[in-house]
Amino acid sequence: MDEPMDYASAGVDIDLEGSAVASLIGALSSSVRAPGTPGAPVHLPGGFGGLIEFGDNLLALATDGVGSKLQIASMLNQWSGVGVDCMAMNVNDLLCVGAEPIAFVDYVAVPKPDPDVHAALGASLAEACRLARVTLAGGETASLPGIVNELDLSGTALGWLPKGEAITGERLKSGDVLIGLPSSGIHSNGYSLVRRIVEHLGASYSDEAPFETTHEGRTIVQWTSGAPTLGEVVLNPTRIYCDPVVDLLMAARDDAPFSITDVHGICHITGGGLSNLLRLHPSLGWAIDEPLPVLPEFRWLQEAGGVDTREMYRTFNMGTGMILAVDADRAEAVLAWLQERMPSCSAVGRVTDDGHRVTHASGVEFTHY
Amino acid sequence: MDEPMDYASAGVDIDLEGSAVASLIGALSSSVRAPGTPGAPVHLPGGFGGLIEFGDNLLALATDGVGSKLQIASMLNQWSGVGVDCMAMNVNDLLCVGAEPIAFVDYVAVPKPDPDVHAALGASLAEACRLARVTLAGGETASLPGIVNELDLSGTALGWLPKGEAITGERLKSGDVLIGLPSSGIHSNGYSLVRRIVEHLGASYSDEAPFETTHEGRTIVQWTSGAPTLGEVVLNPTRIYCDPVVDLLMAARDDAPFSITDVHGICHITGGGLSNLLRLHPSLGWAIDEPLPVLPEFRWLQEAGGVDTREMYRTFNMGTGMILAVDADRAEAVLAWLQERMPSCSAVGRVTDDGHRVTHASGVEFTHY
Repeated sequence: MDEPMDYASAGVDIDLEGSAVASLIGALSSSVRAPGTPGAPVHLPGGFGGLIEFGDNLLALATDGVGSKLQIASMLNQWSGVGVDCMAMNVNDLLCVGAEPIAFVDYVAVPKPDPDVHAALGASLAEACRLARVTLAGGETASLPGIVNELDLSGTALGWLPKGEAITGERLKSGDVLIGLPSSGIHSNGYSLVRRIVEHLGASYSDEAPFETTHEGRTIVQWTSGAPTLGEVVLNPTRIYCDPVVDLLMAARDDAPFSITDVHGICHITGGGLSNLLRLHPSLGWAIDEPLPVLPEFRWLQEAGGVDTREMYRTFNMGTGMILAVDADRAEAVLAWLQERMPSCSAVGRVTDDGHRVTHASGVEFTHY
Repeated sequence: MDEPMDYASAGVDIDLEGSAVASLIGALSSSVRAPGTPGAPVHLPGGFGGLIEFGDNLLALATDGVGSKLQIASMLNQWSGVGVDCMAMNVNDLLCVGAEPIAFVDYVAVPKPDPDVHAALGASLAEACRLARVTLAGGETASLPGIVNELDLSGTALGWLPKGEAITGERLKSGDVLIGLPSSGIHSNGYSLVRRIVEHLGASYSDEAPFETTHEGRTIVQWTSGAPTLGEVVLNPTRIYCDPVVDLLMAARDDAPFSITDVHGICHITGGGLSNLLRLHPSLGWAIDEPLPVLPEFRWLQEAGGVDTREMYRTFNMGTGMILAVDADRAEAVLAWLQERMPSCSAVGRVTDDGHRVTHASGVEFTHY
């Protein structure tokens, strides 16, 4: 490949998106709901915007879609995983503030409704509800032939937590131990680049993946028998972290050898990759010295696309889907508890106080997201 | 016009949509959340699916989009009302079960982000939050150049109500008085047909509306001076009924001369028009003998498109955006209370027990939705 590929050349302009969203947020005045009433906004240090008051509890909303991963699903007419992707993108965000997801609604926009596709989506959403332990509390399918070319799927998750127990990043401090939870694959970010690389190679999603796909800590959901195809690897559903994270939070509030105040921060590694960590605290740093192993599809994508290592870590999760920052004194207990449920998780680094940046064993460094 | 126009010929197949959605719902298993825990589904007679348990309260989610009205907004680059439309479609649904809307999240899918459009959307959503009295608790803007041609806007609203006070239609009985609340225009349904008629006529949305637009009980939001343009009339934002309906429910629970149990049913008149009433009860009928006056744009559309009267009432709200069914003994008190806040509302008919159908003064009858 002549020129190395990056996310912007694949058609996604993160800066333009940021400026559009800033325009939208700038236009919003503060809520009419007074403090102490149901629905009053809760402003937390970490900047997570979705929390509202509800009596002795807080409720949290998260909304997100599957994005361009859908274009590969559409091309292969394989919808079995996208409901799980949609759920994961939302409930994993709720977990970051310490909320337990309890309900979900989906929004599907199609040029024309197709009962077979909808039956497959329904099965995928049902599986997603089971994995995330939420109630599907509604949904909408809109036929918008002039607006959408292909199926778009998004959703909204509702979660709750006891007032005063939000995980905000306020308690983060130098020395906190970072625990990495393995991802199941590419999850739901970076697919414009994935598609561009696969297209450039002329590779077929239906062929056997041109690399060894086996990796401890994840299994690939297959719709063919035999070795996984490239399509199966890239469409592998996003991991939903409700199990073990909700259970961890419950245990921390109950009788575990650690408490909820020992969990100082939780970060969902999505678009922006490890740079997402910088959102959790305005000044502390993040040293990832012993990262989880990189999943084989990322190594293959990097080589095939000639993608710069920094660009890879800014676009993809690279094998780590969620990071918990835990008090150093209780890190061993938390890690032992987590490893019983998810053996491949491990301590990957530390919170530092020498600058607001992420440093990674690969040499990659991020100072802004 | 040679052939009369209808909604199906305008590109929307309601039956196909229904069958696609049924496929989706059919694939969903029951929730993993046990009765009595946060998020457990609440199954009500009326079939409203979005209710879940939360301690002594119920929470409700509603999700919907603006639909093809967006294509006209896009053509005119006028986004000032679509946030209100999106909010209205969702919060008005929540009102039907007796829930007070408290929070909202938006989802925007665009081929490419545009800061100016987003600033306008943000202003519209801020206005919508003020009108619906909710907190904007988040949102997502997705750049999906391969999936969407034009901007798609949808959202999810969260509401709550005290357990045991849901309005389910269970208390509906023959003789209940129907109170109609005026709509502000076409609201957010039927735009495929609107666009087809305007296109057929070769009319311009930028020209002065070719009919007298004045109508008591609504004002047209204008971005030009002078007489309203056709575009201003058809894009007039959907009425949000939180004021007066939330206040009515609060008053009914408090010291008004009527109680919450006197409000037997609330119906949001959306796609399907008056046939929506049939969803509220499995056997009772609905006689609309003294309807609210038809808005002038509907008369114009009918004539210009040669649309059958029944098709008009099945596609559009025709001037009535919401209908409340109230105990006959308290109907006068409820109506007087409502008329103080919304002078154009009036008693439009009665619940009947001679068959599961809607009959209307125009001669139109519906026996299924």
